[in-house]
Amino acid sequence: MRNVALVVSYDGTDYQGYQSQPGGRTIQNKLEEAIRALTGEEVRLIGSGRTDAGVHARCQVVNFGTSSRIPIERWAIALNARLPGDIVVHSAHLVPDDFHSRHGAISKTYRYTINCYRTPDLFRRRYEFHHPTPLNVECMREALAHLVGEHDFTSFTSPHSTQPNHVRTILDARIEVEHGADEQLYSNEAYDRRWDEANYPGKRRGIVHLYVTGTGFLYNMVRIIAGTLIEVGEGKRAPDELAVILAARDRAKAGPTAVPQGLILWEVEYADLKPGQARKTT
Amino acid sequence: MRNVALVVSYDGTDYQGYQSQPGGRTIQNKLEEAIRALTGEEVRLIGSGRTDAGVHARCQVVNFGTSSRIPIERWAIALNARLPGDIVVHSAHLVPDDFHSRHGAISKTYRYTINCYRTPDLFRRRYEFHHPTPLNVECMREALAHLVGEHDFTSFTSPHSTQPNHVRTILDARIEVEHGADEQLYSNEAYDRRWDEANYPGKRRGIVHLYVTGTGFLYNMVRIIAGTLIEVGEGKRAPDELAVILAARDRAKAGPTAVPQGLILWEVEYADLKPGQARKTT
Repeated sequence: MRNVALVVSYDGTDYQGYQSQPGGRTIQNKLEEAIRALTGEEVRLIGSGRTDAGVHARCQVVNFGTSSRIPIERWAIALNARLPGDIVVHSAHLVPDDFHSRHGAISKTYRYTINCYRTPDLFRRRYEFHHPTPLNVECMREALAHLVGEHDFTSFTSPHSTQPNHVRTILDARIEVEHGADEQLYSNEAYDRRWDEANYPGKRRGIVHLYVTGTGFLYNMVRIIAGTLIEVGEGKRAPDELAVILAARDRAKAGPTAVPQGLILWEVEYADLKPGQARKTT
Repeated sequence: MRNVALVVSYDGTDYQGYQSQPGGRTIQNKLEEAIRALTGEEVRLIGSGRTDAGVHARCQVVNFGTSSRIPIERWAIALNARLPGDIVVHSAHLVPDDFHSRHGAISKTYRYTINCYRTPDLFRRRYEFHHPTPLNVECMREALAHLVGEHDFTSFTSPHSTQPNHVRTILDARIEVEHGADEQLYSNEAYDRRWDEANYPGKRRGIVHLYVTGTGFLYNMVRIIAGTLIEVGEGKRAPDELAVILAARDRAKAGPTAVPQGLILWEVEYADLKPGQARKTT
């Protein structure tokens, strides 16, 4: 038996999430079917974590045991030929027997994207939340700083969470704003600029990317953080309220759960596997 | 009657092209239906040019006459509410009565994108041609230079072209290569690097964007240019062959017509309308 890890991207739009469900259209099911079609083996994939229905992954890491002797450098191409176009295996790696893509993950990074131009970016519409009014990003950054470190994130998870412990550590969180070459298309007429200045003082348009890196995440955690930060950016909440929300340990104190399509599992970090880096043990 | 111009993006994947066809699923039909749903008027759109089935537009400009008194700044939002998600109106402009989006266009720019990493970029897979082996971009640039200027482009259009005159002027043509942050995902293992060095000397991986600006284009012209340049990048043709192909005025001398999904109508230039710039005549 060999232990094989795959680095996978997927577009979650048409899936019920990562995790296998009987009869369900899930990413795990599709990957397991492709492996079965290739090797004849019924494997059970271990993923670095679940993603919800409609959530995407730029870099999901999965691993499984196999008796197949297919050379490691052939796996990606062979699996892609058996996968739909919205799931891509970028690379395959032979990993030590004790490698476990969930337990071994040191940290994960999610990205949540909010486009606050007037009109969606057509070519990225499946991977962003379109919020057609401008946001105060400085206030959002100030709010976000309250979440970095070890905290009880009960306010930022579903009240139906089955996790016994809601303490998690956010190692890094940042917001990057993209003002693309396409900006001029997004109806920045003098009329629109005057309207924005009059109606949204201190707020700007742009594509806002929220990156959150943590050792682990609760159910819906990044989407609730995004939903709460959007309310801060709209001026509905003060940045310092984030400290109060955290302390309350009450989901009702935080903002709404932002829509899934803006969320991408961006990266997973391991001590012994850097996705894409040289790694061949045999 | 007022003359209204719209700046429109679309994802051509699920369409039979821009131009109206009876009973066809085309961009023009969808836009005309949305205008009818909004105003009750049967309008006939004038577009800056046709795009083929599967070809996209970042910036298509269309215009039409209307008696509607809807304020110009409301058109984009009102039409978007009546359009499918793969067509977006970014802005609407009141333009002079004699503005004609096809005749008035000074130049148009198309972009053709070739991803020559091993695996597709999942999030841009609908807008690129995936060519899984590396290309010699310097040779492609050298070849492309032969096409700039006024030439008879008979070799670069369909033999079924109904145009009486195949002389066109390419004002500018360039290739930009993108090496994104995602590069490490694209299986750049030591194994793969050695393979590339041994099998594709002088060639590199990356996302190759070909931009071509001209006063007018023949049917399939940019796609045949792209298909021919890919053969140059693969080393199947010398860069100087482009001069020979042009001189032959024979479609059979050029390379294949590259697949439509890599092509985007990128920009249309006018003297009196800069899409997105301030322009309100009433």
